[in-house]
Formats: sequence, C-alpha cells, structure tokens
Amino acid sequence: MPSLDEFGRIRLWTEGRQTADFLARAGVALGIGDDAAIVSGEGPGREWLIAADTMVEQVHFLDETMGEADVGYKALAVNVSDIAAMGGEPKFALVSVCVPPAWNEERMRRLYDGLYECAERYGVAVIGGDTTSAPQDLVVAVTVIGTVEAGRAIRRSGARPGQAVFLTGPTGLSAAGLHALQRIAAAEGAERDRLAALLPPRLAQAHRRPVPSVKAGRILAGTGWGASLNDVSDGVASEAWELAEASGVRLALKEKLLPLSGELSAYAGGNGLRATDLALFGGEDYVLLGTADKSCEQELRERLRAEGIPLFVIGEVEEGPPGVELEEADTGLRKPLAKRGYNHFAEGAV
Amino acid sequence: MPSLDEFGRIRLWTEGRQTADFLARAGVALGIGDDAAIVSGEGPGREWLIAADTMVEQVHFLDETMGEADVGYKALAVNVSDIAAMGGEPKFALVSVCVPPAWNEERMRRLYDGLYECAERYGVAVIGGDTTSAPQDLVVAVTVIGTVEAGRAIRRSGARPGQAVFLTGPTGLSAAGLHALQRIAAAEGAERDRLAALLPPRLAQAHRRPVPSVKAGRILAGTGWGASLNDVSDGVASEAWELAEASGVRLALKEKLLPLSGELSAYAGGNGLRATDLALFGGEDYVLLGTADKSCEQELRERLRAEGIPLFVIGEVEEGPPGVELEEADTGLRKPLAKRGYNHFAEGAV
Repeated sequence: MPSLDEFGRIRLWTEGRQTADFLARAGVALGIGDDAAIVSGEGPGREWLIAADTMVEQVHFLDETMGEADVGYKALAVNVSDIAAMGGEPKFALVSVCVPPAWNEERMRRLYDGLYECAERYGVAVIGGDTTSAPQDLVVAVTVIGTVEAGRAIRRSGARPGQAVFLTGPTGLSAAGLHALQRIAAAEGAERDRLAALLPPRLAQAHRRPVPSVKAGRILAGTGWGASLNDVSDGVASEAWELAEASGVRLALKEKLLPLSGELSAYAGGNGLRATDLALFGGEDYVLLGTADKSCEQELRERLRAEGIPLFVIGEVEEGPPGVELEEADTGLRKPLAKRGYNHFAEGAV
Repeated sequence: MPSLDEFGRIRLWTEGRQTADFLARAGVALGIGDDAAIVSGEGPGREWLIAADTMVEQVHFLDETMGEADVGYKALAVNVSDIAAMGGEPKFALVSVCVPPAWNEERMRRLYDGLYECAERYGVAVIGGDTTSAPQDLVVAVTVIGTVEAGRAIRRSGARPGQAVFLTGPTGLSAAGLHALQRIAAAEGAERDRLAALLPPRLAQAHRRPVPSVKAGRILAGTGWGASLNDVSDGVASEAWELAEASGVRLALKEKLLPLSGELSAYAGGNGLRATDLALFGGEDYVLLGTADKSCEQELRERLRAEGIPLFVIGEVEEGPPGVELEEADTGLRKPLAKRGYNHFAEGAV
C-alpha cells in the first residue's frame, strides 16, 4: 500500500462512512476536513453536554483481549455512556488517534469500522479529530458532544436522604469477561484452545462491546425522576462513593439486592471468584447507578420496562457523613464499602 | 507525595485555576468533575466550531526542546489556532492526558501551569477531559469549542480566481527555533553551552509558545472579507495546497513577497539554511494564510493594522487545475511548489 500522508489516512478511514444527508440532519454544517467542524446551535431550551474519554493500548486493552474493531467500538461507546450518565442525547464525536508503527492502515481501518458501527447505532455524527504518529502504543482519544433539555441534566450531586439507589442492569460481567480473556491470553497451546472454547460469549461481549445506557438516561432526565446518576465505568462501589461524596450523603446498599447474572455466578463459581466482588468492584459495565425519590419508583420501573430496561433497587440514601455501606447477605451486618474500583492509576495496567 | 488516584490528580492539577465567576460568565453550568460538562447554548445567530489536536512526546516534542509548561501552553494554543483559522472565538476546552511514569505530579502540574496560562490569555474555560496512565510517552489530546456568527466561518474552500493571497505574519520562525533547539540538544559540554548562549530568543519562543491569530481571524470573519483561511500549522506550501485543492483553484505565489524576519534570515544565513525554505516548508507558525477580494485589501490592511497585525499579500488566486506555483525571486520563473510540509507521517519524529 502506498505511503499516505495524514490527510490520505484520515480519508481512507473516514470517507463515505456517514452520508451527507445524515450529517445535515444532525446539524453538521461542515464535517471532517477543515480546521474545525461547524455545527448549528440548538434552541434556547437545550444545553450542551461535553465529555472526553481516552483508551490507551497496554493500559485499557491488549491485542489479546480486544480486536481492532472492538477497540474502536468501545472507544466511542464509553464516551456515549458519559452523555447517557447525564441523561443526554449524544450528537457529535471527535476522534483523535496516535498511531504506532504496529497499527498499519488495515488495522486502523478495522478500528474505524467498529467506531462507525457504534456511531451508527447511537446516531452520532463523527465530525473531526486528529491523527498523529506514536512511538509505541495506540491512543484513541474521543470527545463526545450531546444535548439535553435545559436544567434537566442529572448530576452526581442530586442524591438526597430517603431516595432509593438503583441500577439499570447487572454488573460484573465486563470484569469477568476481562478475567476470562486474560486467562486465555496467558495460556498456551491446547490449554489456550480449551479456555477459548469455554469463554462465555456474553461476558466477552460485555467487555468488548459495552452498551451505553442512552435510553435509560433519557427516561430518567425526561421524566425528571432521576435525582443523581453515574455510569458504572469504575465499578459500583467507586461510582456509589462518587454520588455519596458529591451529594454529601450516605448510600446504604444491600448485598442481597445486587443483581447477579447467571453467567457471572457460573463463571465466578467455576474460577474461585466471588460474584459479589466482581459486581461491586469490577468496572466497565456502563449500566447506570443513580438515585430517585421512592414515590417515583413504580412509575419509573414501568417506563423503563416498556423499553426493555430493568430497574434494580439496591439500597437507599441516608443522612450522614458521605460514605457507602453494604449490608452483608450472610451476616446481616452493615460494613463500610471499600472505595476501590477500576482505577488506572491505582491498579496499573489493564 | 502520597499516591493519588485519578480524581486526586485531576483536582491537584486543575482545582482553583479558574474562578467560578469566570466559568459562569463563559456559560459553563457544570465544569470538571461529573460525567460530562454542561454549557449553555448560544443564540440562534451563532454556530459552534469544534476542533481537536494532539501532542505526543517524541513525535511533537522532546524534553530537550520544550519545558513542561511549554508543552501545556502549546497543546492548547494549537487548538485555539484552529478556531482562529475559522474566524471564531474560542470558548471551551477539554484536556485528556495519558501520563507515563516519567511525568510525575510536579511535572504535570507545570504542564497545567502552561495550559492555564494559555487558557487565561484567550479566555478559554477548561471544562473537562480525561486522565489515564500511559506506558511510555506523554500524550496531550485537546478538544476546543468556539463560536462564530452563523454562516460567517471561513472555510478552506472559499478561494476564487482574482483574489489576493495573504499572510498575517512572517513564517519559518518556529522551524528555525526547532532547528536551533535540536542542535543544542544534540551537542555536548562546552559546545552545548555555546549554542545555548547563541539561541535567538524570538525563534525559541516561536516554537515553544506559538501565538494563535484569534484577533486576525475575528476581523476576517466579522467583516466578511476573509474568503478562505488556514492557520499555518504545516507550513505555507502545505496550507496553500489545502486551500487550492479545497477551492479548485491555483495559487500563484511570489518568493520576493514572502515576509522574512530579520531573525530568520540571520539564523538561516549563519547555519547554511535557506530562509525561504524555512518560510515555505517550516510549520507551526500559526499565522493565517488566506485569500480575500482585492477590493477589500486596503480596508482589511487598515483594520488589521489598528490591532497591530500586519497583512502581507504574497500572490493571487488563478483559475486552473488545483495547485500552487511559486515565482522565483532570482530567475523570475514560475515553478510548481512542492506539496511537502511539516507532516508527522511523512517525516517521522519531530
């Protein structure tokens, strides 16, 4: 393949991926190819939500655990999830890639295949970014821009005593998937093949192709019932601590109310892991953790169910110094829940 | 210093840097610290400009050529320049950093010192970003958001035959500065000290602390006189080719009209370099290259001069297949101008 300059590469990866009609309807006056993109403003009744999230090779993924298309898909999905966690609607994305020699044009094209697959699923217009070389490790830095009805964005700081604490789906699946993928990567020969054949597809999928909770976020913001909200990127414990500290309240969770999927329990049981630990401390599930007035609980459950989204109440908000406690299932004792989670600085690689 | 998690680090680097009053006046309803920032929309008479630009250690800078604060300053300045190149007003920035072990908290704090110095100079509210670890090289990925009067953004595609081609300042200084800094970095002992003592401050400054041309861009967009526009990030030749190809025209430049600063000529002469080559092919000057109807030239010159900004007409736009030609100063011959410039993929490191 001929050596291409930066513009040639960007064209190769992005051109023709989204139609002029789609971009125009999305409000894009000028997309990829100039110094900046131009997008039209929204009416006075809306605000903009803007977030950025980066994936780094060796830190967030390895060749052995993620395909190229998975990397692209997930890099956008985790950003869309940040908009979902505010109750917003994702609209635009900018994608900056730092490309090391090992990522040739074909691998990068597959990365963009995955990224655009995610963009199409969530109606996101890719309007710009940057492409540079990198000495060693791939970096995909995405910025996403969404909108929300003015004043309706759901912040971390809105939790109040008496509210219910909820999750919009089970957690721990992505962490279990990563555990399984890392075991396969570390094995060799026949053992590797054996482990790969046993890989539970739903767990691998949860790690590689996370599902941002846009619909759930829109319902929570649109109805006004969502009082505080986070996406579970760093694990339930870590996200619960964020809500507690931002809101100045205590979250009292019950272990027996945690939604544990059958796949998670089976995998944990077969591999000497505690499903509850994965559900509390494993990250990257991208369901929503939030709080809502108990008076809204039944109506909220019905609205979500109509969209195929479950609602799991896992505890309640109490007064008190900021913190998170967990009532153990077997002892009935309440204990402080460790603040640890999926933190890149604290834990190091992957 | 105690080990800090991601949130601790972000707080250390960003907290208290910009006042609540400044952020509120900038339209920031919610800044750093939640899943996404919230900013209010502009009136219906304005559009948004959004751009992203990334700096990578080893590729865009070395420890020997840039201080930490320079890296932060420049990472934001080159993004502000993209908004200037559309004629817009920069408003918000998101800063994502991938931090390798060699960049400790103190070095990162100096990087943010420089970044916020630039933000203050251009009135940019830093509203978010992301922080991750990195295996080896620092990456600073910035997204900047600006606004412009609806329909007034100046695109690359607006050059028309008969227009004048202009620059808003001399070029080649940053490339000469980089050349000087690299020679110092490669030297040792007394020779290194000797070269450092001879380093022309304006050239080093041009490389380390580029000046985005926001005022010039605002005048060109506000008056409607700017027909096409680029910032000189990849060199005059490369940017002229971009205007020519996007507009479907030929740009005929004259070597004798190129603005060469005294510092550039002196440095080039003393180091066996051609000042013209640096001015045409050296990148990262961040003055503006554009085209405008000749009927506006005098008024435009006066409007810019009132702000202390020069206007150098360096050629004109002609019909013909897209391309760029240069009339040589010594021979008077017109020759095709090479498309090469400061391209990270084509040239490799720095």
